[in-house]
Amino acid sequence: MIINGVQIDDTFAEAFPMRATRVIITAQNLKWAYHAANAMTGFATSVIACGCEAGIERELAPSETPDGRPGVAAMIFAMGGKGLAKQLETRAGQCVLTSPTSALFAGIHEGEKIALGKNLRYFGDGFQISKRINGKRYWRVPVMDGEFLTEETTGMVKAIGGGNFLILAESQPQALAACEAAIEAMKKIPNVIMPFPGGVVRSGSKVGSKYKALNASTNDAFCPTLKGQTETDLSPEIESVMEIVIDGLTDEDINKAMRAGIQAACGLGATRGIRRISAGNYGGKLGPFLFHLRKIME
Amino acid sequence: MIINGVQIDDTFAEAFPMRATRVIITAQNLKWAYHAANAMTGFATSVIACGCEAGIERELAPSETPDGRPGVAAMIFAMGGKGLAKQLETRAGQCVLTSPTSALFAGIHEGEKIALGKNLRYFGDGFQISKRINGKRYWRVPVMDGEFLTEETTGMVKAIGGGNFLILAESQPQALAACEAAIEAMKKIPNVIMPFPGGVVRSGSKVGSKYKALNASTNDAFCPTLKGQTETDLSPEIESVMEIVIDGLTDEDINKAMRAGIQAACGLGATRGIRRISAGNYGGKLGPFLFHLRKIME
Amino acid sequence: MIINGVQIDDTFAEAFPMRATRVIITAQNLKWAYHAANAMTGFATSVIACGCEAGIERELAPSETPDGRPGVAAMIFAMGGKGLAKQLETRAGQCVLTSPTSALFAGIHEGEKIALGKNLRYFGDGFQISKRINGKRYWRVPVMDGEFLTEETTGMVKAIGGGNFLILAESQPQALAACEAAIEAMKKIPNVIMPFPGGVVRSGSKVGSKYKALNASTNDAFCPTLKGQTETDLSPEIESVMEIVIDGLTDEDINKAMRAGIQAACGLGATRGIRRISAGNYGGKLGPFLFHLRKIME
Amino acid sequence: MIINGVQIDDTFAEAFPMRATRVIITAQNLKWAYHAANAMTGFATSVIACGCEAGIERELAPSETPDGRPGVAAMIFAMGGKGLAKQLETRAGQCVLTSPTSALFAGIHEGEKIALGKNLRYFGDGFQISKRINGKRYWRVPVMDGEFLTEETTGMVKAIGGGNFLILAESQPQALAACEAAIEAMKKIPNVIMPFPGGVVRSGSKVGSKYKALNASTNDAFCPTLKGQTETDLSPEIESVMEIVIDGLTDEDINKAMRAGIQAACGLGATRGIRRISAGNYGGKLGPFLFHLRKIME
Repeated sequence: MIINGVQIDDTFAEAFPMRATRVIITAQNLKWAYHAANAMTGFATSVIACGCEAGIERELAPSETPDGRPGVAAMIFAMGGKGLAKQLETRAGQCVLTSPTSALFAGIHEGEKIALGKNLRYFGDGFQISKRINGKRYWRVPVMDGEFLTEETTGMVKAIGGGNFLILAESQPQALAACEAAIEAMKKIPNVIMPFPGGVVRSGSKVGSKYKALNASTNDAFCPTLKGQTETDLSPEIESVMEIVIDGLTDEDINKAMRAGIQAACGLGATRGIRRISAGNYGGKLGPFLFHLRKIME
Repeated sequence: MIINGVQIDDTFAEAFPMRATRVIITAQNLKWAYHAANAMTGFATSVIACGCEAGIERELAPSETPDGRPGVAAMIFAMGGKGLAKQLETRAGQCVLTSPTSALFAGIHEGEKIALGKNLRYFGDGFQISKRINGKRYWRVPVMDGEFLTEETTGMVKAIGGGNFLILAESQPQALAACEAAIEAMKKIPNVIMPFPGGVVRSGSKVGSKYKALNASTNDAFCPTLKGQTETDLSPEIESVMEIVIDGLTDEDINKAMRAGIQAACGLGATRGIRRISAGNYGGKLGPFLFHLRKIME
Repeated sequence: MIINGVQIDDTFAEAFPMRATRVIITAQNLKWAYHAANAMTGFATSVIACGCEAGIERELAPSETPDGRPGVAAMIFAMGGKGLAKQLETRAGQCVLTSPTSALFAGIHEGEKIALGKNLRYFGDGFQISKRINGKRYWRVPVMDGEFLTEETTGMVKAIGGGNFLILAESQPQALAACEAAIEAMKKIPNVIMPFPGGVVRSGSKVGSKYKALNASTNDAFCPTLKGQTETDLSPEIESVMEIVIDGLTDEDINKAMRAGIQAACGLGATRGIRRISAGNYGGKLGPFLFHLRKIME
Repeated sequence: MIINGVQIDDTFAEAFPMRATRVIITAQNLKWAYHAANAMTGFATSVIACGCEAGIERELAPSETPDGRPGVAAMIFAMGGKGLAKQLETRAGQCVLTSPTSALFAGIHEGEKIALGKNLRYFGDGFQISKRINGKRYWRVPVMDGEFLTEETTGMVKAIGGGNFLILAESQPQALAACEAAIEAMKKIPNVIMPFPGGVVRSGSKVGSKYKALNASTNDAFCPTLKGQTETDLSPEIESVMEIVIDGLTDEDINKAMRAGIQAACGLGATRGIRRISAGNYGGKLGPFLFHLRKIME
């Protein structure tokens, strides 16, 4: 399969089950909603070392938020419910409760309820006030700038982590340009985040290492500088490879995001140095979610 | 003391010793240097819950970076050297090694050496190459987009955490406007970071709580909505209080940042609703660094 | 009428007929689409002195643009068709044709056709190539970075200029905060632009002046510093007034934008210093479009 | 001459005399200073069609501005003093006087005095107040959000327009990446602006055209798509060319900016597709300022 001169490999991305939640952060204006959301979703690129994977999903108009103020939706993914709840509580307490003019609400109402304001409320030292509106419980916690308004719980649902594709290009600036195009397009798809810095990861890894203490190491088959030293998967004209990793609520969400991203990357085309799209997998052993590139792009 | 109609309290901020390091992150352009630096310094508002306090110190011209590319300087503060080294390694590994086109260098050459590329290099699975230039050791680690270049070590120095001041205003938008003015001015001072979201914290705390499990709770004496329910420190016209916390390398650095910030906040003046500047302390018991507001503003 | 403690005056905004067009600017990524669009819509706050009023309407996903690349929609308003065509040609030629990687397309297909690429094509010095796709004519103009692709014409439609409302607050930072909230909300409404810097104008004018050469001068009745010197329209607690001007395709579009903006401004409420919403008019003489605040907010 | 694999042509940029001024725009915060400055310097890429060339020179700390607030310095260039004065007055009146919380000051004190607030003051309709501080005259003009403070005059000095260099690359994304690196570096050099969108122009022109009404047309010798149809100046591997135009106060300023920009572009190197740096000139006939690339890069 060839799109605009770019080869789509006959391969698949392999993804695994996670748990996810979404919260809505509002503030006096979008700038401060982003300050809180960026802090809360920072240092959250990979669940193993960071405890979760997190990102901003999208911007919300005042008409879309519970308190009629501007806001953003942020999503957090973890391997299990307990870890997710812990990360949510710590990150919300450190980065949203603290942030000027902010309020914090549930962004999913399905699934299992996990604590949002339920534990944060104790910061109020007994001065907090419970409020019930339309069957939902909120907390008003007195803080120095006024009150921190937060919903009692948010929903936790099943989700999928590790959707991905690789962009192979003739040079680093071209690979980066294709990634930027892909990320811009993917940000407009709901229910997904791309957890790495700017949405892109350039240090793809293989399982195992010659150093016993390490579980993972550089994916030498995809490193352009190692073409002569290892069994490479790269043809001579490929000089740079970048990967986009996607976490999403359902396989359909990840499908849509991968499709939008690959389409945008191929938009630059072979004449602008984009040569091949591939994906990372573990031979289908990790599973159970497989995203076949060619099926997605049909 | 009155500046532009704003009362400067006769009080002091109380700060404590920390350990700090600075790193330089470069990339193909500033946008991607910021992506890496924002990820690395995210979720780092308060050392107790986040493991460190971190922030971007400033933007660097190509002529100021080791590899002649655009970059940013980021600083990380922790309670001790071991914790700092651990946070640096994990955050650099997850957020800079992974980030497209990035390189990572020491930002301080004094003090004790701590690992920067020294451990990250093992990701290269034996393909990494050591390089010595002008007496400094670097590592070239093969990654998918080319190579990750990183310096062997960076310096760790004594530092100070917890410099702070409070802005008391007639309304929340006014307090926020004064904080924005203060943060813009403080960002131009070297050797300091303001670790909270957007540089500001609105949930000041007191030691202790009526809930035994909690060590800290809302500073009710500074909560405008609690004026009638607690022994308040606020006069009737104060309706919003925000705090700026500063970590810096020396007390002179924190002095300069506090001075610039208070000056900028007072620039709005009493006619724009800014009424009082105060500071948080523990009666001098925590110490040993005391920052007297009036001495700073003389 | 009172919303969240804010008085809505029993008055109306008065607007007048204009001509408008919309164009779509695409580029390699959004950053460069914005560079071109910001340049093209700069210095375009008021039609009398700038020749047109212009602004960015909204961001476009690749799936919404003719060439499948990221883009933005920009709108230009002028008093008549001839002036509009001239402004469009000059601004597109100076700011979009020149901008790296850009392409330029029609953003309205109704109304009268006016030249877009039709005249710009001559820059190609005879090397330009015509292309017809789905009944539309395009030009491919050779430039140094490759080709400038542009559509032959765009549509010009009837439109309305001068929708507006005033925010009256207890202080300048509060008025500004309410304007920021209003503008964020209004940017999400289609078919409108707010042509002043950041969407806001603080120098409202009255017709006439004591200096004969001037047709307009400061609206002294709304200047807080002139309360003692002129017949003021401001009560003692009002210390700052800001205005938002809206140009839109239809009165329904301006209605929606005014509603969203006033709602957002009132969201801050009287407790945050927002006291009154008013509007500017000429006693109904300029007309013919009248926007009654209370009818809009019903 | 070869830098990092990139050929530096043995040629020169040719520039011509202009007049220039600098103004300082301050506001409640940087965001609003930028709103005013971006509006004022918009649609100002080329003096012939826009009336002037303008751009933001740099950001200013509160300690660097006359009123101790955050600000930006903007520069305007025109062919003669009369045109410059007219552009300054119109643009300042439409884009700075109108912009919430702004103030406007001289940014150069040498040279001939031209009107800044001198004419804008009449907007105050007789309510404006003159103020003399340290020998400089200011005007306080009552406006709806409070007062517009502006200095009576600013300085106009001799300047140079049309410094430039060309970046020749193997593909459009690579040329763009090199331009972004160059612009980031050049923005840190004082006394210069790069007036095109994002600092870059991709539609280089030659004098004359086959259409008699046109004075300039596409520089076909540098258009990659015309290699087979015209006498090209491009070797087969060059597929994209972009230009950076610089206006500056002195030839030394332009020298420094060109040097910083070329250095940064060459930083990407031949391995990332950057192959050649050239410059635009008229055979030395336009003059009188010649910038020899190899001399600059020595």
